[in-house]
Amino acid sequence: MNPYAAATQNFRVIDVIRKKRDGVELSRSEIESLVDAYTRDKIPDYQVSAWLMAVVLRGMTRGETAALTDAMLRSGEVLDLSSLPAKKVDKHSTGGVGDKTSLVLAPLAAASGLAVPMISGRGLGHTGGTLDKLEAIPGFNVNLPVAQFRRVLETCGCAMIGQTAEIAPADRKLYALRDVTGTVESPYLICASIMSKKLAEGIDALVLDVKTGSGAFMKSEKDAAFLAELMVDTGERMGKRMVALITDMDQPLGNKIGNALEVAEVVEVLRGKGPEDLRQLCIELAGWMLHLGGVSGSVAEAKMQSEKLISSGKALDKFRQMVELQGGDPRSIDDVTKLPQARQTMTLSSSSNGYVASLQCEQIGTACVILGGGRERKEDTVDPAVGIVLHKKVGDAVSTGEALATIHYNEESRAALAKQLLEASCRITDSPPIEKRPLVHRVMEKAGEKN
Amino acid sequence: MNPYAAATQNFRVIDVIRKKRDGVELSRSEIESLVDAYTRDKIPDYQVSAWLMAVVLRGMTRGETAALTDAMLRSGEVLDLSSLPAKKVDKHSTGGVGDKTSLVLAPLAAASGLAVPMISGRGLGHTGGTLDKLEAIPGFNVNLPVAQFRRVLETCGCAMIGQTAEIAPADRKLYALRDVTGTVESPYLICASIMSKKLAEGIDALVLDVKTGSGAFMKSEKDAAFLAELMVDTGERMGKRMVALITDMDQPLGNKIGNALEVAEVVEVLRGKGPEDLRQLCIELAGWMLHLGGVSGSVAEAKMQSEKLISSGKALDKFRQMVELQGGDPRSIDDVTKLPQARQTMTLSSSSNGYVASLQCEQIGTACVILGGGRERKEDTVDPAVGIVLHKKVGDAVSTGEALATIHYNEESRAALAKQLLEASCRITDSPPIEKRPLVHRVMEKAGEKN
Repeated sequence: MNPYAAATQNFRVIDVIRKKRDGVELSRSEIESLVDAYTRDKIPDYQVSAWLMAVVLRGMTRGETAALTDAMLRSGEVLDLSSLPAKKVDKHSTGGVGDKTSLVLAPLAAASGLAVPMISGRGLGHTGGTLDKLEAIPGFNVNLPVAQFRRVLETCGCAMIGQTAEIAPADRKLYALRDVTGTVESPYLICASIMSKKLAEGIDALVLDVKTGSGAFMKSEKDAAFLAELMVDTGERMGKRMVALITDMDQPLGNKIGNALEVAEVVEVLRGKGPEDLRQLCIELAGWMLHLGGVSGSVAEAKMQSEKLISSGKALDKFRQMVELQGGDPRSIDDVTKLPQARQTMTLSSSSNGYVASLQCEQIGTACVILGGGRERKEDTVDPAVGIVLHKKVGDAVSTGEALATIHYNEESRAALAKQLLEASCRITDSPPIEKRPLVHRVMEKAGEKN
Repeated sequence: MNPYAAATQNFRVIDVIRKKRDGVELSRSEIESLVDAYTRDKIPDYQVSAWLMAVVLRGMTRGETAALTDAMLRSGEVLDLSSLPAKKVDKHSTGGVGDKTSLVLAPLAAASGLAVPMISGRGLGHTGGTLDKLEAIPGFNVNLPVAQFRRVLETCGCAMIGQTAEIAPADRKLYALRDVTGTVESPYLICASIMSKKLAEGIDALVLDVKTGSGAFMKSEKDAAFLAELMVDTGERMGKRMVALITDMDQPLGNKIGNALEVAEVVEVLRGKGPEDLRQLCIELAGWMLHLGGVSGSVAEAKMQSEKLISSGKALDKFRQMVELQGGDPRSIDDVTKLPQARQTMTLSSSSNGYVASLQCEQIGTACVILGGGRERKEDTVDPAVGIVLHKKVGDAVSTGEALATIHYNEESRAALAKQLLEASCRITDSPPIEKRPLVHRVMEKAGEKN
């Protein structure tokens, strides 16, 4: 018995740290108090970082994860889009290389009558970011004030911006601390970070695209599925319709990597063309968005409807409309040569006959960063024009001297380094790979699993 | 592959945090760099607290523990006592209630010809501290500069001071951070903290008194033995002669608790009297100090020699000499009524016939803190006069109305609260307790075990 215990009633952060350290489940109010106090600078970084490390090593229950997500969500503004009659649906990807599906899906779902209030991030490390891609469109403004964001959404059914200072400030503060304290790699913290921001959009349903493979943050399918299930469960606890697709990121998605190049590929898909894997994944994800949004009774039906919205040109029209409403030049959509172009190109050719056995996806993403197309540090600027066009994907036959990829670059020395990396990332064997990785590994609904 | 990795060669604290988080063994140079950078304020608290939590939850290897101890030791000054011809020996206790053995052992070992350069701490929480006890002696100065400490040691063979700013500054900084981040409770960190300070004394041998039971920090014998073995191993890796005794702290040691009261009991023991348990433990520990210091060929012989140094009055003479050299009034040793005396006493009487089955030791320590005899917070001041005298110990028969304890107090309200706690701490049963806990549970040498 400690006679002074009564003197320090109420919330004591040290007790919360000790409980988590000892593997004891925290109450909702303890988690709320911690997040609230930290957001208001009432407790120091050094206590929160110790707590974060305890969370990384001890984990969290589903209840704790939902409470943390909720506390972070409520640390800032939650958009109230109840005045919009349409169902609000969004999609979130855990990030990969060549993943430009958001730019296809927002206008596509909007064309079906849904509202898509999409708040996205920038690229970091080897992965690209939706905001960087949008900014490759001349004039496109991703920093709209909330009132204007709402106006664009009301007018065309979709709007795409970056995180505002008002949304989930706790996440911004916590993420900056996690980044320098080795506490990023926790599915519970990743879940709370993603879900708090997404749920602040005021949505009814969310489709999660959780990537797995050499270009994903979650390299193993097991880890990806664990995170997916956690996010589905957290969203459902907060009354949202949820689904997670575990999709392949063992090679880049589509053929183009680099911001302007990816916008051009988005336009191809919206014209009913583009690479098969990208097209197919867009249809899968759109199918789930439309289905969860109540547009179609089944996913199969919703996928057919999505195909039609592309072939009819309605999805492309929406995209053009959104670009224009957000200050972008719509002519660069109609004629993608008006997008930023690199001054030089260089071809990587095959030195042997055979088949592409694998494409080390993280290395290819890093090659794009080296060209200037991504950022290693938050403060780096991005060159929208540079990137890589793959002419061969895994399983393709290739003969000596045939082009494997084209590098679009503005600086000779960077191009040389990127070429070396690209070369090393591509493995060619005599016989084709025996197993082909599926595009969609699993579909997870209702904190359970469904194939 | 990260193309920017080369730009951040050398020491990166984030990598050290991640390695420990992932259970990878750290190299000696990584640990040295971390401690060195932190001591020089080159890395922030929030990174170190995350690392500390990872250490708490992942543990450390023996090599890492020794490397951490060594780095903390070398963060400050290491006393060079090589000019003293005598072997330098010390004793360290992990802390308990009524544990005043240091005040007996320093002069006793010095009387055998050894040098005892003892640097001690203050009480915190329910445990007492050697410095607080010494300061109950009127005039006694525990804050000697190093040069004067050395002079006292050369003159009488023992000297007792508090930690100086020059000794193990890394420990001071790390301990303050651990205290507020829930990272105190790690045997590896406790070992490094204790051993770095003790080895900075420039000693040849160290006797560890690791307490176990209701009044100890390590309540279970298993935890106490784990810490003991770790400290013995760490000391031996650094070339010191080591032994650890796991001793009982399930009830207070001796009969008196409170600073001046404990000094009086020390004088009793040095006069060949005093309570049996205290006397016996002092002889055990002194035996090991003399044996490791090479004074006697066996522990049994050394214990007999220790008895003689008490019965001849030589140990008491040393104590009187040290008190005088450190500014204390030697008359208070010859006549303990000259020590600070509380204004009031109050008796706690037994309400039933029977036997004392247990004395909840931590509660009794807390009762003494409530009286003003200890501190809950570092900045609290201590009343040297107050305390508790136990008239009955575990196993003793007691009849209704008989005195169990006398409370020495200066404030009525504090005494009432302390009496309640004392009452609750004492369990009386009809029959005597079946098992008697031994005073010395185990003796551990050479990172092995010996009974």
